[in-house]
Amino acid sequence: MERHFDELLAELKNHLVRMCALAEMMIADAEKLLVSRDASVIRTIKAHEEEVNRLQVEIDERCLTLIALHQPAASDLRFILGVAKTNTDLERLADEAINIAEKAEELLQAPALSAFVIIPQMATLARRMLKDSLHAYINRDLDLANRVLLRDDELDDLKDQLTEKMAGFMEGNPASVKYAVDIILIGRYLERIGDHATNIAENIIFVVEGRDVRHHGAAKTHP
Amino acid sequence: MERHFDELLAELKNHLVRMCALAEMMIADAEKLLVSRDASVIRTIKAHEEEVNRLQVEIDERCLTLIALHQPAASDLRFILGVAKTNTDLERLADEAINIAEKAEELLQAPALSAFVIIPQMATLARRMLKDSLHAYINRDLDLANRVLLRDDELDDLKDQLTEKMAGFMEGNPASVKYAVDIILIGRYLERIGDHATNIAENIIFVVEGRDVRHHGAAKTHP
Repeated sequence: MERHFDELLAELKNHLVRMCALAEMMIADAEKLLVSRDASVIRTIKAHEEEVNRLQVEIDERCLTLIALHQPAASDLRFILGVAKTNTDLERLADEAINIAEKAEELLQAPALSAFVIIPQMATLARRMLKDSLHAYINRDLDLANRVLLRDDELDDLKDQLTEKMAGFMEGNPASVKYAVDIILIGRYLERIGDHATNIAENIIFVVEGRDVRHHGAAKTHP
Repeated sequence: MERHFDELLAELKNHLVRMCALAEMMIADAEKLLVSRDASVIRTIKAHEEEVNRLQVEIDERCLTLIALHQPAASDLRFILGVAKTNTDLERLADEAINIAEKAEELLQAPALSAFVIIPQMATLARRMLKDSLHAYINRDLDLANRVLLRDDELDDLKDQLTEKMAGFMEGNPASVKYAVDIILIGRYLERIGDHATNIAENIIFVVEGRDVRHHGAAKTHP
């Protein structure tokens, strides 16, 4: 029985890792669509989204089964509850990649804008935060989790720079308002990805230290 | 033991209801700050946020204790896991009210803008979605949950109207770009509140019907 539980827990972790890898690819592809204007990635993004959605349902069911049939010890129970929450964050994070891809598809009609230096920086940072937060969760790595929290401030700064830059651009180019607003929104979606990674990192600090940093660590609201 | 479990479950529900009421007040106060420019509500909003944060931690702990000590039957376990997820949504929803309040505070410096007809409509709808989604969750009311999902489309339409209106405004008033972008973002925050309410409604459909509507109901991504 005990061994069986460990095996199921290992499988659960593998499913999370797979979901994280899919979400990372979705962000990278959305960025490719936006920056390189490579429309061939749209089908891949949609296929990955479907797999993420399927995995979300499966992971929740596995969490329920593990708890119901194996009555795990307190620390394992906390870990599994954290998996269910992390699962939700991963799925919503993938939704943000879809939001970016949809805006990027609209922007294929527009002339290329100049804010693209900041967007790839933000996308790279967001992907790294995602990867590190899940790694921290799976391996109960507190140092790595704390580094994710710090990096969220960096991402917020980039988002503010982007918003200011685009606001300045609009003042001088009122005819391009719609496209500039879309770029601002893409910056927000990337920031949301960072927020979800932050949530995942906060989950593991809660699991490992048994204390709740969710309202003491990096600020949770990002205007 | 059985009776004890029922009492604890009832207490858990009461905590969720309290959190929902606080979040509702936060949205109403943020709207007041924005529309009536009544700065006296800022302190109340912050006090409510602190209580929401405290409740979030307590509800998670209560979920863990209920599962660990009472080994609930499968349907109760599913309900409690849904409470933990709903708890997360309520807290993030309250964060969106804070985001609105922070933007509204900045906008106190600006001349009043004309988009305020749509904002109160959106705020009223979002509050109603929140209240109904939690009521549906607590009472396992599927009809009500489904009505929340439908209303999310209405909220998205209002957000699109607002964005278009503000984009048009910016084209003619390039000097007011910053404020108009803030109004667009406030529309997004209200839409996010609707998204969280939708998530709560979807949770209960999953709990009651044992089927997962999360990827078949109202669209989950809102560009």
